[in-house]
Amino acid sequence: MTGVAAIVGGGVIGGAWAARFLLNGWDVRLFDPDPESERKIGAVLANARRALPMLYDRALPQEGALIRAATVGAAVRDAGWVQESVPERLELKHRVLAEIEAAAPSDCVIGSSTSGFKPSELREGARHPARIVVAHPFNPVYLLPLIELVAGDDPDPGVVARAKGILEGIGMFPLHVRKEIDAHIADRFLEAVWREALWLVKDGIATTGGIDEAIRMGFGLRWAQMGLFETYRIAGGEGGMAHFLAQFGPCLSWPWTKLMDVPDLDDELIGKIAAQSDAQSGALSIRELERLRDDNLVAMMRALRARGAASGRVIAAHEATLPATDMAAVPMETVRRTVPVDWTDYNGHMNEGRYGQVFSDAADAVMIHLGADADYIARGLSYFTVETTVKYLVETHAGEPFRVETRILLGQGKKLKLFHEMKRASDGEILATCEQFLLHVSLETRRSCDPAPQVAARVEALSHAHREVGA
Amino acid sequence: MTGVAAIVGGGVIGGAWAARFLLNGWDVRLFDPDPESERKIGAVLANARRALPMLYDRALPQEGALIRAATVGAAVRDAGWVQESVPERLELKHRVLAEIEAAAPSDCVIGSSTSGFKPSELREGARHPARIVVAHPFNPVYLLPLIELVAGDDPDPGVVARAKGILEGIGMFPLHVRKEIDAHIADRFLEAVWREALWLVKDGIATTGGIDEAIRMGFGLRWAQMGLFETYRIAGGEGGMAHFLAQFGPCLSWPWTKLMDVPDLDDELIGKIAAQSDAQSGALSIRELERLRDDNLVAMMRALRARGAASGRVIAAHEATLPATDMAAVPMETVRRTVPVDWTDYNGHMNEGRYGQVFSDAADAVMIHLGADADYIARGLSYFTVETTVKYLVETHAGEPFRVETRILLGQGKKLKLFHEMKRASDGEILATCEQFLLHVSLETRRSCDPAPQVAARVEALSHAHREVGA
Repeated sequence: MTGVAAIVGGGVIGGAWAARFLLNGWDVRLFDPDPESERKIGAVLANARRALPMLYDRALPQEGALIRAATVGAAVRDAGWVQESVPERLELKHRVLAEIEAAAPSDCVIGSSTSGFKPSELREGARHPARIVVAHPFNPVYLLPLIELVAGDDPDPGVVARAKGILEGIGMFPLHVRKEIDAHIADRFLEAVWREALWLVKDGIATTGGIDEAIRMGFGLRWAQMGLFETYRIAGGEGGMAHFLAQFGPCLSWPWTKLMDVPDLDDELIGKIAAQSDAQSGALSIRELERLRDDNLVAMMRALRARGAASGRVIAAHEATLPATDMAAVPMETVRRTVPVDWTDYNGHMNEGRYGQVFSDAADAVMIHLGADADYIARGLSYFTVETTVKYLVETHAGEPFRVETRILLGQGKKLKLFHEMKRASDGEILATCEQFLLHVSLETRRSCDPAPQVAARVEALSHAHREVGA
Repeated sequence: MTGVAAIVGGGVIGGAWAARFLLNGWDVRLFDPDPESERKIGAVLANARRALPMLYDRALPQEGALIRAATVGAAVRDAGWVQESVPERLELKHRVLAEIEAAAPSDCVIGSSTSGFKPSELREGARHPARIVVAHPFNPVYLLPLIELVAGDDPDPGVVARAKGILEGIGMFPLHVRKEIDAHIADRFLEAVWREALWLVKDGIATTGGIDEAIRMGFGLRWAQMGLFETYRIAGGEGGMAHFLAQFGPCLSWPWTKLMDVPDLDDELIGKIAAQSDAQSGALSIRELERLRDDNLVAMMRALRARGAASGRVIAAHEATLPATDMAAVPMETVRRTVPVDWTDYNGHMNEGRYGQVFSDAADAVMIHLGADADYIARGLSYFTVETTVKYLVETHAGEPFRVETRILLGQGKKLKLFHEMKRASDGEILATCEQFLLHVSLETRRSCDPAPQVAARVEALSHAHREVGA
């Protein structure tokens, strides 16, 4: 499902919301009175266009149109979703929300990016309060899936369902927070850690760089894939969570838990932090740091995706909703995607080994099309690749969209021969070819055998069709 | 550098320390009076043997010998490193440290796994206090690199240097905490988040599962690769850290930062958390959760490694110290490693595409051996692969150690033909073969050309040697 998304307020957050919608095929109408906003949004969009497609093994849909609106009313008029991302001042939010309500269609959801305010606060004076919800995203919004969705203590189930559907449709993970609370959930944790970090820097225990290492070399890795409680459940061993609590609970009365004052963020502390941060990261510009962060995130999320875990599961689920390749075409379109950054090597081009993966994916698509799918494998039958020959014709680079066209050259009994052509999407130039010889096997005996009749029939029909055009 | 490591206390932490040392070629003498310790350590070792080798693109050294010692004295007698991991009771630690000091060599470092005590507390009554340091690891100790190394406010530089060298030698990241403080650094953050999480569960704002999602779908991903300050520096945009502080600083006086009491961890709250955790994760046993966690960590850390970032950089640096393959052998040994879990597919065996990677890595080893290395590429010359033919002979599974033997079949002018055999390490069975045809190219003109004389000479010499045995 796509439609029109209205983005009110186009800073780093609003711009990234716009990118999420655009790259998932929505049209976006954007309102921001800041004359600088066009440049700022351009920068966010460039980052998003580079990073987001690399998460997926399929191409994203055709990008939507971005239109700048002169007024809030013009932005929201036909919107299916309105996202408000103006500065964190309640009276400003009230004013903007009133303008949105005056012009938006009655069935559209109005999300606020607020990190601090509760729905009950945002809704003061609203005409249709139930459809105003907190939809709190996390930087970089075009990559991180989390949205804290807060619809009040007595939410309208229809609004929640509509909001969830739209957010999932653009690849996000809406976490419905069932009771409203200041700062929702995640920012409470961030705030608690931030407070502690300020003390450590102020007291000279650690530098900003040391603190970052203490996080990313240890528990940060745990939290990226399991979070807090599941990690501790494991620490409890066979005794599980209750055992862990019995062991760890007493720590809560230890002396080091009593340091809970708020440090004074005076000029001295600000200067100390800024200087340490310069020493730690100042050699790179913010653009370079963004690129580094996005590449790391893409690579880690793709790794989790391959494990079917955490944010990787969200990517896989979203990908399943993306446009499929055209398997009915002759030749078949077996792959359509972008080269992700983690596929390139020191020569600056796609690593040799990844071609094997591309053609293996192409063969997988053929398998599913033939009916030799997961169910078939569960029945103990599959095709194994016996030999492949790859020819590398033209260099391929990160971010390049491409497709693979596949023909069945031979389909006879247990033998299957495929011919793949990998083509640049923009001009159809052939980048590489692959001839692949497969044998049908029994997974029980691990020996070759004839395919099941319905698979054999499909192989025969397709190899006929492909032979005719392949000449 | 390897030697003898004495492990005193062999629970989950001590056992994993033992595994780190053993798998990096150290002999380990372990003392633990618990009759169950043998079984417990066996379980940790099994996990470590499966997970740790998968982090690296090279084989770990020959595993050291594990010997159970009857007394603390017998365990520490020849040790280069002693690691104390007994329960967190100071009088017990004092007793054990005294026994260690009485028998350990004078130049060995004595590390304590304590998460709470400061070196000054551990050292009370010690004979050689300066060499007793905190070396605080993080679960799973066999995978996460972080060690908080605390050597007191006035440390012995020799002890710190020796400790760092040994810890880095077993693949860890020792973070020297320069001022001692209760709970060091990371546990202060964990404690702060834990406290906040208890409130959220107690007040019914979120379940344990919801909290885990709030972490792993959002900031957990940021923290695994950049930590806190570098992430916020980016949020500050071009204005950098000072700008961020000016924006975010005021939040510290917002109402939601005042919730800093310690919740009462009574039976009701314990029951609530345990029940929610069962609902969230109870379908999997602790062993299954450990496997899940380790696979996720391995996959993410390997992804970071490919980016040269965060913990991935530690892996790469450690790997460079691992035994190299035997390139002087005929045929050349171009790869020696284990199949990592993220290389296997739904058939349960190594994915077709990964064979391409193995043989690409083998070719890279040949390139470096020929002198066509990074410097050579910087001069604008390189070999490009034009065609490869892979034959898949025997299935290969995760965790299987293997090696690749490579011969130069043809080395004539700009043409180079390699023949690789991938063999199971245990019995030498050939798993797959690859014939690879490469052309020498100028990276400037992107056209083929003859290699530089010294590379051409090496190619010729090797192809002669290989032809003689290849017949």
